[in-house]
Amino acid sequence: MSSLFLTDDGVDLALRGFARVHPQVSLHADPTYATTNDRHPNRRVGLVSGGGSGHEPLHVGMVGRGLLDAAVPGRIFASPHNRQVLEASRRVAGPEGVLHIVKNYTGDRINFGIAAERLRDEGIAVQRVLVDDDIATENAQTATGRRGTAGTVIVEKVLGAAADEGHGLDDLVEVGADVARRSRSVAVARRAQTTLSGGPAFTLADDELEYGVGIHGERAAETIPRPPLDVLVGRMLDDLLQRHEEQRGVVLLVNGLGATTQLELLTIAELAAEHLGSRRVRLLDVLVGTFVPALDMSGFSLTTSAMTSDQLHYWRAEADAPGWPRRPR
Amino acid sequence: MSSLFLTDDGVDLALRGFARVHPQVSLHADPTYATTNDRHPNRRVGLVSGGGSGHEPLHVGMVGRGLLDAAVPGRIFASPHNRQVLEASRRVAGPEGVLHIVKNYTGDRINFGIAAERLRDEGIAVQRVLVDDDIATENAQTATGRRGTAGTVIVEKVLGAAADEGHGLDDLVEVGADVARRSRSVAVARRAQTTLSGGPAFTLADDELEYGVGIHGERAAETIPRPPLDVLVGRMLDDLLQRHEEQRGVVLLVNGLGATTQLELLTIAELAAEHLGSRRVRLLDVLVGTFVPALDMSGFSLTTSAMTSDQLHYWRAEADAPGWPRRPR
Repeated sequence: MSSLFLTDDGVDLALRGFARVHPQVSLHADPTYATTNDRHPNRRVGLVSGGGSGHEPLHVGMVGRGLLDAAVPGRIFASPHNRQVLEASRRVAGPEGVLHIVKNYTGDRINFGIAAERLRDEGIAVQRVLVDDDIATENAQTATGRRGTAGTVIVEKVLGAAADEGHGLDDLVEVGADVARRSRSVAVARRAQTTLSGGPAFTLADDELEYGVGIHGERAAETIPRPPLDVLVGRMLDDLLQRHEEQRGVVLLVNGLGATTQLELLTIAELAAEHLGSRRVRLLDVLVGTFVPALDMSGFSLTTSAMTSDQLHYWRAEADAPGWPRRPR
Repeated sequence: MSSLFLTDDGVDLALRGFARVHPQVSLHADPTYATTNDRHPNRRVGLVSGGGSGHEPLHVGMVGRGLLDAAVPGRIFASPHNRQVLEASRRVAGPEGVLHIVKNYTGDRINFGIAAERLRDEGIAVQRVLVDDDIATENAQTATGRRGTAGTVIVEKVLGAAADEGHGLDDLVEVGADVARRSRSVAVARRAQTTLSGGPAFTLADDELEYGVGIHGERAAETIPRPPLDVLVGRMLDDLLQRHEEQRGVVLLVNGLGATTQLELLTIAELAAEHLGSRRVRLLDVLVGTFVPALDMSGFSLTTSAMTSDQLHYWRAEADAPGWPRRPR
């Protein structure tokens, strides 16, 4: 089956390419992790995230000024090893320690957890913010709970700006947990990603849509007849808005899952803005792009984040990382 | 057949979304065109480009500081109307007139040409730089000659910086024509883009590759058995390098055609850098991303540009547009 344009050591070569293209990020080998060369002098806490590869620019692309101090990439769709997390955390720990930003998957929780225990043994303070924004997995049969998806970008951005203002570990945990709690996502796919061995991870009929798909091609609870785009976007927003305690205003993230064009994402953003207006929900800001894809899946996610004014201030702060877009000044 | 996430008025809604997300660009209606709100005070010539939609961020995303003054988007894969070109050119013409950057397609040449005649009738100086970088169409049966593809990004960037230094129209034509002449591209696809009516524009067997594909899904002269990625990248570079009169050093653009992941593009960039090294060709700079896609085609292009040192200076100058990436400082 027709496979991706990758070599057998896919991720390693891509990371070397990343380091070549983005010299403002340092790539460390054995174990593999990336750190910023542009750390704000006010930071007292190192921010570390990571997870499986195949979701680029997350996580390595979010290393930079106003964002992460370090990121640890696993193999494709696989958790990083705890030794990667440990070494990255040691390297970027501030005087008040390290904060781990972890997407809610069993492997990531375990590996970040093992590293955290070892760091504490060494006298380094460590805390965790768990990102669990995907509402499609709220009622999953597993005990894991909601998975972490595109909301990770929001949590990383808000925490990055808060860390640059010199907040300590406890403050950051509070900010991060709160903005994570205020952020919810849902994703749809019209075509699965290509697997590493080639061919699509699952098949859908032409008139079908996977509603609530995961970022690794986890099948959703629902395969639905494909509605008109306007109706689809309205349904997704309704599903999201009813999860928010407050919904007077939201930041909206329109995220491509890989093979979705800018034309499509911008169309979706405009439809979503119109829907929010008709529901009297204020659109505080909107970010459109491919930030947390599932390799080359054709689909998109919507994330709404009912930020506080402090969180919005952090969200809007200047940042500079390979995967962070240019924002209006 | 499973179609894209677009509405019937696809491009119009996407452009409204673009204007919402990027307020630093002004969108004009009837006829449709986009202009920058951030024009360098030294500019004496307005830079205008455009072409069919479906290649975003080209062209509208390249409107901004250090790049285009205006862009005119056509319908998907269709030339803009000459009235769009005319109005955009009138609006951004400088004291020394307007320079049109035109990809070499019949429709674009005709429509930019009609607008240019009318502008000249009004006393506005107009010249054109034609971009014709695609080596796969060198021997095409048509009289059109090489098509314009990803090299357009290079021409727009170099001309944008040159215009900001206050060069006049004749100088800019010379710089643009020379960097266009020094830039060559070739593209491959493992899967066609989705058509507007749904389904792939053409089909390939799993072990096949379209070598020399166009950015509208034009079939290539060759459908080849898919080689290992390293071999493929080497062949593409060899085909490009033999077209350059000078090949001591090149700027490399690794461009995704739509559905190609960052992991893949970075892997390709690293392989290309190694190939260039082994051929003793200096890699002056490398840019990696999705800049000139063919909707959601799965594939990539390589562009090599054997720039002069002046052109490299313009290429490296700061720029700020929605589709221009963050570069290392």
